[in-house]
Amino acid sequence: MKLDAVSDYFTGLQQRIVAALEALDGGKFRSDAWTRPEGGGGVSRVIEEGTLFERAGVNFSRVQGASLPASATASRPQLAGRTYDAMGVSLVLHPRSPYCPTVHMNVRCFAAGGLWWFGGGMDLTPYYGFEEDARHFHATCKQALAPFGTERHARYKRWCDEYFYLKHRAEPRGIGGIFFDDLNEPDFDTCFSLVRSVGDHFLTAYAPIVEKRRAVPYGEREREFQAYRRGRYVEFNLVYDRGTLFGLQSGGRTEAILMSLPPRVAWRYDWKPAPGSPEAKLTTDFLQPRDWV
Amino acid sequence: MKLDAVSDYFTGLQQRIVAALEALDGGKFRSDAWTRPEGGGGVSRVIEEGTLFERAGVNFSRVQGASLPASATASRPQLAGRTYDAMGVSLVLHPRSPYCPTVHMNVRCFAAGGLWWFGGGMDLTPYYGFEEDARHFHATCKQALAPFGTERHARYKRWCDEYFYLKHRAEPRGIGGIFFDDLNEPDFDTCFSLVRSVGDHFLTAYAPIVEKRRAVPYGEREREFQAYRRGRYVEFNLVYDRGTLFGLQSGGRTEAILMSLPPRVAWRYDWKPAPGSPEAKLTTDFLQPRDWV
Repeated sequence: MKLDAVSDYFTGLQQRIVAALEALDGGKFRSDAWTRPEGGGGVSRVIEEGTLFERAGVNFSRVQGASLPASATASRPQLAGRTYDAMGVSLVLHPRSPYCPTVHMNVRCFAAGGLWWFGGGMDLTPYYGFEEDARHFHATCKQALAPFGTERHARYKRWCDEYFYLKHRAEPRGIGGIFFDDLNEPDFDTCFSLVRSVGDHFLTAYAPIVEKRRAVPYGEREREFQAYRRGRYVEFNLVYDRGTLFGLQSGGRTEAILMSLPPRVAWRYDWKPAPGSPEAKLTTDFLQPRDWV
Repeated sequence: MKLDAVSDYFTGLQQRIVAALEALDGGKFRSDAWTRPEGGGGVSRVIEEGTLFERAGVNFSRVQGASLPASATASRPQLAGRTYDAMGVSLVLHPRSPYCPTVHMNVRCFAAGGLWWFGGGMDLTPYYGFEEDARHFHATCKQALAPFGTERHARYKRWCDEYFYLKHRAEPRGIGGIFFDDLNEPDFDTCFSLVRSVGDHFLTAYAPIVEKRRAVPYGEREREFQAYRRGRYVEFNLVYDRGTLFGLQSGGRTEAILMSLPPRVAWRYDWKPAPGSPEAKLTTDFLQPRDWV
């Protein structure tokens, strides 16, 4: 295990991504460093009311603890309660334009009880879908995993479709991407290399999409639909997301963890878009498990 | 056990409360009846964009199921997985004016494995606090419980303060009220009588407060603060609330369950009100466990 090398890669990745997002937005991300009494800390990079991003956060954290929370060990219950070292970069970007999708990316590494494992992924949540963007995002995810075996992308794409799913809505959170957890084979170096490839492909996957869509004009109707759909993002993150629950349970920094929540959200009772409308097409044409590549 | 009598009281209570709220608002609540394949159903009464209420729901449901979800049996783990009959009225009212508090009330009855128990309560969540309103609300809660022993109000008030608490914010959801669960002593009739008293006192506790505050003028500043504070309501309901989780886990009607979520919500990073401002007073003077009566 070379945990410090992983930690160094993560802090460098955070800096590179923030620099690129600042260039896209034109504004500056604030930087909040924090430590926690139990050990470790992090750096939250945040922008609100930017030109491109209404609210966006890119967080790095590395925390040590005396007792691993259950949310971190779904498939390793024997490790719950052990001392641990957990590190990762997690980002959620909420653009202001309803034509620019929300995106999430995470890379992480856990060590506990003499074991280690990696996890991560990225996934896209459009409000108005574009087939071309969906293909580009998924193709880039596939590229990131290509050096690590032919089966891997299909497996991680399916895992993403399964994970980012709102059971109570019978609805996926977005159009997916890739997701993986408990990665510890064949060896540490290969796993670390895979995680680096995912992290390094994030900007390639996302930046061209916002560059293409940011100038599309929109009005109140599109903003309302975006606010309504963002409610689903809140529901997923607070009810199901293991990363969010791990953060809240492990005494992480609440404001940094909840940076994933959108800036303005609306809930409306039993609302449905008009059949055939662009808003209805999001569900019929995009929020369906589909082979995009 | 006279479960049908309880069920009849609950449907009558829903009708009386909706009639009173319609008189306050001037608008009409829509009525959606639903059934579920596993057994049972309910009636959702909902208003949105009313004069007084921006979004409000008063739900009745009675559902039978083959396997009691864990969220319903925190203190009776041996009943998880048993057949059950669960009924209740649950309401959350989100007024448009930031000077009118959000309120929640619930009365419920469970039967499973030959056992039965009642639960319920009501609690108030102001955006701008008024001491007089807090005293009135708590005094009415105390009145409701007065016939059932001198210790009961203090115990149910403390239970409410403990239950409606956001651990990750180290902050109560509102100014409390009363909360109880697992009530099955001394006998069914007394418990049912207590639950009726709680249900019957709801309008007395809440209506005078909105009548007094609804005409207070407000602007963008107060609406923004309300939207921000409503985020805490969302966080509590989706992360902690057993009723919400029971509903979602038991295959309840999602739109009815999530009627508790506010209509318009904002999240802002690490925002704090100016010291001494009316917004800061909410935390310093009201969101503190306090003996209001």
